[in-house]
Parts: sequence; structure tokens; C-alpha cells
Amino acid sequence: MDFILKNENSIYYECGFSCDNVIFLRLGSEAFFITDSRYTTEAKESIKDAEVIDGGHDLAKSAREILRKNRVKKLLYDPLDWSVEDFYRLTSKLNCYFKKERNFSQKKRIIKSDKEIELLREASTLGSKGFDKFANYLQDGGVGQSEKRLFFKAIELLTNSGELNVSFNPIVAINKNAAKPHALPSENILKKGDLLLFDAGVKYKRYCSDRTRMTEINTKSHFGIKQNYKDKKRQKVYDTVLKAKDRALKVAKEGVKAKDIDKVAREVIDKAGYGKYFIHSTGHGVGLDIHELPIISKRDETVLKENMVFTIEPGIYLPGEFGVRIEDMVVIKNGKGEIL
Amino acid sequence: MDFILKNENSIYYECGFSCDNVIFLRLGSEAFFITDSRYTTEAKESIKDAEVIDGGHDLAKSAREILRKNRVKKLLYDPLDWSVEDFYRLTSKLNCYFKKERNFSQKKRIIKSDKEIELLREASTLGSKGFDKFANYLQDGGVGQSEKRLFFKAIELLTNSGELNVSFNPIVAINKNAAKPHALPSENILKKGDLLLFDAGVKYKRYCSDRTRMTEINTKSHFGIKQNYKDKKRQKVYDTVLKAKDRALKVAKEGVKAKDIDKVAREVIDKAGYGKYFIHSTGHGVGLDIHELPIISKRDETVLKENMVFTIEPGIYLPGEFGVRIEDMVVIKNGKGEIL
Repeated sequence: MDFILKNENSIYYECGFSCDNVIFLRLGSEAFFITDSRYTTEAKESIKDAEVIDGGHDLAKSAREILRKNRVKKLLYDPLDWSVEDFYRLTSKLNCYFKKERNFSQKKRIIKSDKEIELLREASTLGSKGFDKFANYLQDGGVGQSEKRLFFKAIELLTNSGELNVSFNPIVAINKNAAKPHALPSENILKKGDLLLFDAGVKYKRYCSDRTRMTEINTKSHFGIKQNYKDKKRQKVYDTVLKAKDRALKVAKEGVKAKDIDKVAREVIDKAGYGKYFIHSTGHGVGLDIHELPIISKRDETVLKENMVFTIEPGIYLPGEFGVRIEDMVVIKNGKGEIL
Repeated sequence: MDFILKNENSIYYECGFSCDNVIFLRLGSEAFFITDSRYTTEAKESIKDAEVIDGGHDLAKSAREILRKNRVKKLLYDPLDWSVEDFYRLTSKLNCYFKKERNFSQKKRIIKSDKEIELLREASTLGSKGFDKFANYLQDGGVGQSEKRLFFKAIELLTNSGELNVSFNPIVAINKNAAKPHALPSENILKKGDLLLFDAGVKYKRYCSDRTRMTEINTKSHFGIKQNYKDKKRQKVYDTVLKAKDRALKVAKEGVKAKDIDKVAREVIDKAGYGKYFIHSTGHGVGLDIHELPIISKRDETVLKENMVFTIEPGIYLPGEFGVRIEDMVVIKNGKGEIL
């Protein structure tokens, strides 16, 4: 069916170029990239399969004119991408039925091409380097810094001082602040012996990486997957989360449902007695968007297929104490889950 | 009239607290702050005049229940703040007329309180310090760095390595990249003699600063308002923009229309022969949002009043050559425009 897009990543996926002010139309074999004069030159150089149109100050008006000219009677759109105002301006005065479907573009992108997987792999490798650099920093100069300062330092190291982009604002959370899954950086100061959670990623050619690791602050702070803590509770919680992640990875195979991966991770944590402290889904798809389909949750009936990419990230969050999350990106390759 | 809000800054203005997942309802003398469990504790501590409600995973449902219980028949909303999907989920199954008005919250905020002006003044002072630090950096270590790296360094210096927030992503643009009013940082390398545009600001207690200055890269790079260039064209363009800004400031008085300020700035630039290279409005309101009302443009009929705050930022953009913009924040005080 003919469709209209407003989301930057969805449009990039369709035509290999995008910008922050654009409407994209696909009408049969024709496509239209409507933007303003800031972007038309670059768009024309980059886009082969769509006509680039300068919509000036009113892209919606240009879109309406094209829809009228082509006598379009039915058009698919995503109601998450349009504000009430923009949608009203687009559709008023038009004799066209706008059929809504949430995430229809993300649904197309749920199975990655081999090329996309290579980009995601490269993003993951670059992100991983940032983890190593940040571990070195924590060991050498991190003690005494606030979470806010560590947050900024993490971005500096992840992006190589601005050469790359982060795929989202990293989470740098110490001790009890890590018991909030989406902790914001605070004025809390890092001390020796603290437990630190680091959830971060970068973009490579617009494709996102995503990873979470833990470390205890001492002379050998590292984000390796094996962590040794003197504190028994810390160790038990860490090992439980790691086991949940490993088990979930093992069942992540072609033909399995997303909800079954979630179930396995949840069972491990339940069994260790921490079930009620695992307060989010087990994972999410990753690609051009940091959160895509499938959702690895209790309710997601998606059947995993070759070349799907998603995170596995179980966690245990003990309010007022500490939180542990371990996260990897996984691709289904040759029928099996493989860490990217 | 009773109203509903979703915008973080608009809600902060109503009750002195906000977060990134909230719906706010004002029904007569009562108010409701609906959020999820991540924010309820802090919200209850911070908010005195509104009831804090844990809406769990479905804030819209909680809002509907309150509207039903209170038999609300008419409610004001801003169509720019709601996605089609969220608005549908809010309003379906409800017997209530949602009256739309764009920017109704920003309209309330167009005249600042004395307290707000003090916060904006402090933001401006802190922002200005960032400009000084960045000028020192440019002089000492900036040459040889890419715009991307300079962009990152600018954020580091503006925010004191993450202690403050920037009010928007700064614009660091060299030579011909500065001929684009909203230039994105590129791989271009800074060289001696280059002309650099720097447009940046920080937040102080959520209030934004905004400023633009120029500098030529040499042993005495600075962002002072008086700039001396050997190149005659550069100097002429710079002096023209400065004159436009100064003249516009002089006419910025209580009782004058926003469009008349724009007119004066435009006349100066027209007269110097660069009229067609001044390709944007003369300014915009600043407050909790970096872009607020009034708009200082050809068409804005807003009559300036005491305690309005806005930028004056004329510019000349010569494609393929260079661009110059000079920007200050201005408050109407004792009937006259005063630089913050």
C-alpha cells in the first residue's frame, strides 16, 4: 500500500538519506522526498530512487499537492510519528483515507540484511572500545568524580571526543542509583569499592550499539563478563543475572517466540528469589533505532527468524541497595543466537 | 478553562516539578500530576498544589478516569504536544470536547516574572563564561581540530564537564559552513585565519541562555563584540550585522510591535546590500524553552511588554563564503530593551 513517513530513521531506511525536516511519500513505484532548501542539495546527491522536492516552509502543503495530483485515495501512516497539529495540517482539505498502523516501518525492518548486521557488528565493536577506555579511566581518575562528570567523561571516551555519536545518553549509576533501571546521573561521588553500572552505545553509519556491564571500583576495575566481588550478596545477584542472560541466549533460536526468551531469563531470577526485582522486559530489537521490534517481553508473540537483532538484558534492582544489569546484542545466525 | 498538558516545561511552569513521562490536568482549583512509579516519590516531595498520581504503564487511562469522575465536558489542549496515537488513546471513549489551541502554555509564559528574569540572567552569565573558556581553547589548542571535536570541546567547557546542561546543541561553524544558519558540525579542520561562528547556551535551573558571537582564529581570538578583521568584506559584513543588532535593540521598547524590531534590523542589512542574505527572523523568545514566544519576525504583531525576554540575532549568510550572526538576549525593563 502507498504510505507516508515522517520519522528520520524510517525515511533513511527507504532511500539511504534523511534529515530532521522531511516528509517521504511512496506512491506505487514512485517516491518523493520533501524537505527544505537546507537539505535539497545533499538529498539530490544521495537519493537515487525518489524525487527530491523543496517544500519550503510548508512540507505538508507540498505533500497534499502530490497526493491530489496522483489522486491518492488511501495512504498508510504511523500515528506515533505525527503530532495532532501536523497530521491535521496534512490531511485537512484532502479527499484521502489515512489508514493508521503503529510501527509499520519498524515491522519492515525487523529482519536485518547481512549488510545491516555488519554495520551493527561494527557499532558493537566501537562501543566495546568505549567500555575499555572508560574502565581505564575509572581505575585511574574516576574516584572522587560525580556521576554527572563520569557521564560526561563516558560520552567523551565513547565518541572519541565527538567523532562518533552515542546511540543514547549512557547510564552511569553508582550503588543504589543503579537500582533504578533508567537512572539519571546525579551529584553522587564515586568511591573505592562502589558498584557501578554502565549502559551505553554508539552509532556507526546510523546503526546503534547497546551494552550494559558492571564493575566494582578498585585497582582492577574492568567491564569483563566475569566479575569477582568480596560481598556475597553482590556476587550472588551478579551471578544470577549472568546466568539468566546466558540461559536466555541459549534458547534464542529461530522458531522460538520472543516471550519464551523472556520466560527463561525470568525463571532463573525467580528461582534465585529475586523475581520481583526484575522489573522490566528482557530485551528489545536494535537497528537504526535504539529501541525497535521485536520486544523480548512476557507478551511478545513474535517468532524469531534468521537475521533478527535484539538485546538480552536481564537485571535485578534492589531499592536502596544496588542494581545489576548485564546486556548484550544478539543476532539470530544459522538458526542460533550469537552475540554481536 | 480547564486544561491538559503533556509538555515537560509547560508542566514545570504550572507546578515547579516535571519529568519525561507525565500528564498534567488543571480542573478548576484542583490539579493532577500523573506519572509513573519512577517519579512519584520526588514529585510528591516537590509539588504542593497538585495531587500526584501513579498512572503505572497507562497515564492516559488515569487521566480519562479523572476526567470522567469530575464530569469534565470541555478541556483545552495543545495539538503540538500530542502524537495522533497518544491523543486518540486519551480521548477515545470519553464524552468530552477537546478544544485545541497551539502554544497556549507558551502564551501564558510570554511575560516573565522578576524571579524568572533573574534565572535567565544567571543562565546568560554562566553561558558567557563558556564563551570565554572556548575562546581561550581556540587560541591555544583549537587549530587543527575538526568542527566535530570543537563542538564536543565547546560542550565540555560550557557545561563544566557535565555539571550544567546546554540549552541546545551548540553551533560551531567555520567559514563557509557558517553560511548555513543551522550548520551541523563537520569534519572541517580549523586553520589560522578562519572565521568561526559560535552559537551556544546553557541552562540554569531549567532556564535557557542563548548567544552568538564570531571570532577570527589568531593569537588573540576572542568573542568580544568588537571584532577587527584584515579582510575588508569580512569586516563590512560583521559591522553591518552589529549595526543591525544595535539598531534593533534601540527600538525594542514597551509598546513597539515585534515585527517593527525585525523591520529595523532588516533595513540596516538591506541598505548595506545584503538584504537577500538575511534569511531568517530577527529573534525569538527565550525561557524554559529555547524557542518561545514572541517571534521577532516580519509578521509577528505581538506588542512588546515589560518583562518579555527574547533574542536579537540578525545575520548575513554568503553561500560558499562565510556567515556572520550576532545574538544577544534582551529583556524589556523600565520600558526599554536591556541586554541580559
